[in-house]
Amino acid sequence: MNKLYVVGIGPGAYKSMTVEAIETLKECSVIVGYSVYVDLIKEYFPNKEYVETGMRKETERCQAAIDLACKGQKVAVVCSGDGVVYGMAGLLMELGAKEENLEVEVVAGVTAALSGGAELGAPLGHDFVVISLSDLMTPWELIEKRLAYAAMADMVICLYNPSSKKRTDYLKKACTIILEHRKKETICGFVKNIARKGQEKRILTLEELKNTKVDMFTTVFIGNSQTKHIKNQMVTPRGYQIS
Amino acid sequence: MNKLYVVGIGPGAYKSMTVEAIETLKECSVIVGYSVYVDLIKEYFPNKEYVETGMRKETERCQAAIDLACKGQKVAVVCSGDGVVYGMAGLLMELGAKEENLEVEVVAGVTAALSGGAELGAPLGHDFVVISLSDLMTPWELIEKRLAYAAMADMVICLYNPSSKKRTDYLKKACTIILEHRKKETICGFVKNIARKGQEKRILTLEELKNTKVDMFTTVFIGNSQTKHIKNQMVTPRGYQIS
Repeated sequence: MNKLYVVGIGPGAYKSMTVEAIETLKECSVIVGYSVYVDLIKEYFPNKEYVETGMRKETERCQAAIDLACKGQKVAVVCSGDGVVYGMAGLLMELGAKEENLEVEVVAGVTAALSGGAELGAPLGHDFVVISLSDLMTPWELIEKRLAYAAMADMVICLYNPSSKKRTDYLKKACTIILEHRKKETICGFVKNIARKGQEKRILTLEELKNTKVDMFTTVFIGNSQTKHIKNQMVTPRGYQIS
Repeated sequence: MNKLYVVGIGPGAYKSMTVEAIETLKECSVIVGYSVYVDLIKEYFPNKEYVETGMRKETERCQAAIDLACKGQKVAVVCSGDGVVYGMAGLLMELGAKEENLEVEVVAGVTAALSGGAELGAPLGHDFVVISLSDLMTPWELIEKRLAYAAMADMVICLYNPSSKKRTDYLKKACTIILEHRKKETICGFVKNIARKGQEKRILTLEELKNTKVDMFTTVFIGNSQTKHIKNQMVTPRGYQIS
């Protein structure tokens, strides 16, 4: 059975990778990925064949990885964060479905909800939702519906892909929907370039977030009704009684 | 400034820890945690002072860690998975609020939604919700409301603490609520003892899940309307066009 590994490398720093991710990449002869992520890890894994493709070339990239694995090469597809959460794992499994001798195995990684959350404090301290604002493959109406239900359910909301060059007003639109069900003082936060050069973070209210521009390398957190701002950290209590 | 680290150790295997988690624990002199989790890592970090407490002693455990850190000791509180997601980070930040010279820092880890998901395939391939079924500190009515909204929003649902000795019927109750908005053929899965001895996993329909007993060491995944069963893996597509 040929194996193809989907390896989540975490936010981008070597120290954020798991031992298993590092061992898997060391054992593979070919590493496939989006060039931005490949560049983050190349120096730690020399003497590998690297197959890099640009953005929006996901299907070609995954098919290339499958073809190499089916030829018996030991191949890893690297994704930032976790390989499943808005990563390539699902697509690889769908494309690989017709290959009888191929098994796609996931090596889990620290997704931005966790790594970005750690930078802000403890925003995901209770039930939470992860939603991508990218409408490239998801109808905007469905995204709006999910935002509204998440807001009504008073869950912490973590937003991936909150903006892009073409979608500069999506975060504002999302905040407007959420504000229909949540107070404007709700504690929010965002982290840009998590664990990479130029990391920036800020804690602010939902009303302030609505009027803030962020870029596509930013992960956004919207607290629930219990979320607090403690010593410059964003903290969602689990509910322990504190005397 | 005294520092207190909250370290997510992942599901329990050494290989699931990040490099940063390992380095942090190596640098600390005291490691505090729930005895079950401490036992999982003790052998890898010898010559440390270990402070172990039982279940439901969270406030005492966290206060003990804070007191040690305030005396200048380098202390880490270990949590399974991630230290924020149903972990101790939030409580430590709340309790530590009154200590002027204390900073609580989180080292993110691979939470069960990711590690369990990797074992099943790619269940969290699109927008998802993480909900704990434990009503020890959360009113059951709020949990029911969150389940219903998540089901209506057609998001993948990941359930933590799906059962306990006193709450043997909670998963059935949760599935019944979700079945009001989702088809009974919806692809689901669960993983017990992720990355530990006795790991078990199964992929099944929502109707079958409703009639299945799981224990408190199990993480449950309920797919969205697009989730597929491919080669014994649970796969939620992101939406890429496949020719």
